[in-house]
Amino acid sequence: MLATLDPATKTDVLAAMATELEARVDRILSANAADMDDARAQGVSGALLDRLALNPERVAAFANGLRTVAALPDPVGSLTGGWVLVNGIRLQRMRVPLGVVAIIYEARPNVTADAAGLCFKSGNAAVLRGSSYTLRSNNAIADALRAALGRHGLPEDAVQLMQDTSREAATALMQAKEWIDLLVPRGGPGLIAAVEEQATVPFVIDGAGNCHVYVDASADLAMAVDIAFNAKTHRPGVCNAAEKLVVHSDVADEFLPLIARRLWDSGVELRGDAAARAILPDLVAATDEDWPTEYLDLKMAIKVVASFDEAVGHIRKFSSGHTEAIVTANLGAAERFVRETDSAVVMVNASTRFTDGEEFGFGAEIGISTQKLHVRGPMGLEALTTEKYVLYGEGQIRS
Amino acid sequence: MLATLDPATKTDVLAAMATELEARVDRILSANAADMDDARAQGVSGALLDRLALNPERVAAFANGLRTVAALPDPVGSLTGGWVLVNGIRLQRMRVPLGVVAIIYEARPNVTADAAGLCFKSGNAAVLRGSSYTLRSNNAIADALRAALGRHGLPEDAVQLMQDTSREAATALMQAKEWIDLLVPRGGPGLIAAVEEQATVPFVIDGAGNCHVYVDASADLAMAVDIAFNAKTHRPGVCNAAEKLVVHSDVADEFLPLIARRLWDSGVELRGDAAARAILPDLVAATDEDWPTEYLDLKMAIKVVASFDEAVGHIRKFSSGHTEAIVTANLGAAERFVRETDSAVVMVNASTRFTDGEEFGFGAEIGISTQKLHVRGPMGLEALTTEKYVLYGEGQIRS
Repeated sequence: MLATLDPATKTDVLAAMATELEARVDRILSANAADMDDARAQGVSGALLDRLALNPERVAAFANGLRTVAALPDPVGSLTGGWVLVNGIRLQRMRVPLGVVAIIYEARPNVTADAAGLCFKSGNAAVLRGSSYTLRSNNAIADALRAALGRHGLPEDAVQLMQDTSREAATALMQAKEWIDLLVPRGGPGLIAAVEEQATVPFVIDGAGNCHVYVDASADLAMAVDIAFNAKTHRPGVCNAAEKLVVHSDVADEFLPLIARRLWDSGVELRGDAAARAILPDLVAATDEDWPTEYLDLKMAIKVVASFDEAVGHIRKFSSGHTEAIVTANLGAAERFVRETDSAVVMVNASTRFTDGEEFGFGAEIGISTQKLHVRGPMGLEALTTEKYVLYGEGQIRS
Repeated sequence: MLATLDPATKTDVLAAMATELEARVDRILSANAADMDDARAQGVSGALLDRLALNPERVAAFANGLRTVAALPDPVGSLTGGWVLVNGIRLQRMRVPLGVVAIIYEARPNVTADAAGLCFKSGNAAVLRGSSYTLRSNNAIADALRAALGRHGLPEDAVQLMQDTSREAATALMQAKEWIDLLVPRGGPGLIAAVEEQATVPFVIDGAGNCHVYVDASADLAMAVDIAFNAKTHRPGVCNAAEKLVVHSDVADEFLPLIARRLWDSGVELRGDAAARAILPDLVAATDEDWPTEYLDLKMAIKVVASFDEAVGHIRKFSSGHTEAIVTANLGAAERFVRETDSAVVMVNASTRFTDGEEFGFGAEIGISTQKLHVRGPMGLEALTTEKYVLYGEGQIRS
């Protein structure tokens, strides 16, 4: 039974999966070439086409990803607490697999290997539903993983790839309450919205990141420039990139020209409210649509606030609950920001870009939860487990 | 702001709520008398009428319940982990309130005070939706709680009692995704089913308990009789009562007459499969409907199994995921039972009746989760919190 495999067997199987992928690289690449031909014929191009393309390096990368997962600590059976009840019963709270984890993902064949590896390591069966554009590639990858399972005497269906890539099949999966213990959608806003609207199975969503950097009155302005610049430009297309800059009016006159020069030099389009534009007349006027928007692009909107309270109020109003950063030298301001913002991650004097499973030390990341139930923030293997209470007695009964 | 109140203030307010309830006991009892008159006029009687009845002792009991909650450790701000990232950033994982917790409950006015107290202690606003039968009683209780909040300069709406007790209003609450962070239904199967079908807000359900006691081949049979008897008869109407007895065939001849005599003497109706009836001809024949059913009554069905594997297979097939117990002297059997059953709580040589927040040492119980996400098993105050990551840097950026 998958849930009760010992850690060494799981490590061996993950290594065998990696080896099998490498042994089948030609088969995987020719399947991918056929997918690419069809995708081009259907008019797919640009970034989307690039995402579904495989080459020997990309296959090696996700094969090695399985070796990385193999080397992580096994979460199953680890105790998250334990104590003795007044009657002498010894209680343990133990991590156990969820059971069956479904992943719905877009046209990235590497997710087939990544998701299957994470589910297997955490003792879960994986039901994978990829894109029609990558069905041949996904099958070639899944066949390699299943062959490794079979050779170790394990059920190949511990990794299942859905062959029906229709929207109806995805909806059916989202509603298969009897079979699915957790659904993790890995994809864009369209997929997330579909899950939120239609899913009846339990799910964890990796939501939008309308992340803010707040530059407090007491901030070290050189540090603030570095953090805001890094948070915006290091990788603008990802959810932990900063989208908004909130600046205390005490330092706006000095700070805004410094950060604007850095960002403009890197091609960032800057928008601002009236107070920001009074300092930087070249700013585009920000509209009501800017404040709640995740640009995922080289754009940033600037708001000047008259007080710490106004900054926190603005962030609480428009945040998507992902990551907020404060730059400050004031301990009280830092502590209030930590307490009063309500997001998965709060950074004090650090870039929002650190909201990341690898950076947190999880070794692998399933996603970043912006919901409050089950798990919040970067999700490692533990997000694919639940807990069980185990009580050891010597005949105790209740009186 | 409710989420950032210090522990001492919360303790003071909870104590003031208790005092206020006691000061208003006459007002609460006369509101309750009016509710009772209406309920009787609508034909309510028996156990339901008893549940909605208040008297000075019952008011004192829930007032004192608030003092008990006041004395519990405050979960908000406690750290569930912390480490240093490779770049020197100090990471903390911190418990924080969820925000707004909604409770839908049936005609038990004490829940108004109990639920409001637990939400307030955990830093959450409470939206309470009780029964139409107890609206006057609930208002009298909520008014007392709100008065205590107001006198401490806190918003009275931290405790809100919905005045519309229609089914439509309950459904609207279940679907108020913009406002509700967690819904906890406290009631019978009808309410649970409605939440599972209609709720779009996050919820935690307190599901059915079709709990099994498995008597292994190596069990101490005197201990097995005590545990099975206690698990069935100590309080048969609650979810942690045992409903099924699974007995290894090696000990069935000796064990079944012993336990049957005890249970029959206490008025328990015993049903059994063919193998059990071969030993105890007076058993009622169990049907396919028995195995998945939570009786909540003085009934128990007995299955005789030829092996440990058959016992675990039966339990996995019919369990509702609440609590299973094994009675055994065999260490390997105990460990396999712990690993291979998939329920919130597994007891080794102890009564299923210990699945309980008070027994676990939580001080107060919000319910017993039979779902796998967020929390599983008995829920204490921590179930009303989420976590936030707080990262303290000195200007770190990603390179």
